[in-house]
Amino acid sequence: MRGRRDASAADSVTDTAPPARSGRRPGRSGTKDAILTVARRRFAEAGFDRASVRSIASDAGVDSALVHHYFGTKRDLFVAAVALPVDPDETLKPILAADIDDLGPTLARTILGVWDSENGQGIVAAFRSMIASGDTSLISSFLLQIALRDTAVRVDVPAGSGLERVGLVASQMAGLLLTRHILELEPIASMPADRLVAVVGPTLQRYLTGPLPD
Amino acid sequence: MRGRRDASAADSVTDTAPPARSGRRPGRSGTKDAILTVARRRFAEAGFDRASVRSIASDAGVDSALVHHYFGTKRDLFVAAVALPVDPDETLKPILAADIDDLGPTLARTILGVWDSENGQGIVAAFRSMIASGDTSLISSFLLQIALRDTAVRVDVPAGSGLERVGLVASQMAGLLLTRHILELEPIASMPADRLVAVVGPTLQRYLTGPLPD
Repeated sequence: MRGRRDASAADSVTDTAPPARSGRRPGRSGTKDAILTVARRRFAEAGFDRASVRSIASDAGVDSALVHHYFGTKRDLFVAAVALPVDPDETLKPILAADIDDLGPTLARTILGVWDSENGQGIVAAFRSMIASGDTSLISSFLLQIALRDTAVRVDVPAGSGLERVGLVASQMAGLLLTRHILELEPIASMPADRLVAVVGPTLQRYLTGPLPD
Repeated sequence: MRGRRDASAADSVTDTAPPARSGRRPGRSGTKDAILTVARRRFAEAGFDRASVRSIASDAGVDSALVHHYFGTKRDLFVAAVALPVDPDETLKPILAADIDDLGPTLARTILGVWDSENGQGIVAAFRSMIASGDTSLISSFLLQIALRDTAVRVDVPAGSGLERVGLVASQMAGLLLTRHILELEPIASMPADRLVAVVGPTLQRYLTGPLPD
């Protein structure tokens, strides 16, 4: 929840916030919304890495410092822009801590746990609205540059295969999100998470550390 | 393409079509559109099995015979309602003909082949618009009652496991459609189909005929 907490903290100290540098002086929440709107567009067009906080601030007619003040780091801004109800850093902890030979089941268990939690509905809603609006590059950025980046480095054996491995993981997990929570396809929709982990975990493990075709 | 062809054939012989039975007399294409609109809603509400051609005709203010005349069988009407650009019967042939020990790779090869064909874009568009509009029960009906029904019967070992097995297949394949064609996540998006079949085929095979947790 770091991004969220930073944003609320900013609310309470807004008297000290640097003023917008352009002639426009929208209200505080207007400014925050404007920054989020610009950020969403920039991240979608340029991807997470190439979209700079400076360019986002400039497009929104504010100072970079104000963007950091309201939203924290660029990563926090991204999380706020895609309106995720969970903090990826917290969520990804067990995955980063897992032994590499247990990465598949751990990934399945962790991600299914988030979806089945009280925050799950918000994630499904964000996912569905991004598909509906065509803002799919935000999902790709999130997957590759936030959720799976560290894992891709760990499973990059042979060298160069890491992105393919985590892409395959993404394909299975995105399909589970879709069939379990959006299509609500039975019996997947109501299957106990433990059972799904037992079935899908070995698939992910093979994608992550198993042999790949030449 | 059967549903489509029937519909065009109906166009050319429309002089002999039975008249709408209600007082309303919309033009020919108005009637066909009205039938499709009602069919889409009925299939979404009641599912493929429980939505009857008679109830659809009645809601559209026409005779069942006219529905059959324009669209062929109930299955053809369903395919027209979800606006699929391919005939599932044709598409599924190689899957139904495959040896059960080769079902996973055959499924992957066949379905990837359709998506990568000239009709693929239409399928992606239909899929995306159903997710956007929330008409997801049409996709579920299509998967369970058209695309995977016969396969579920073949892999129902132990008895009762068939739907879980094809549901897992649906989760992997829906995720591939999503990552390859909607999110366009690299390197999945541009990976040669043969390579994807080699990687994902064994996953599907395990879901279809491998051991399941108790």
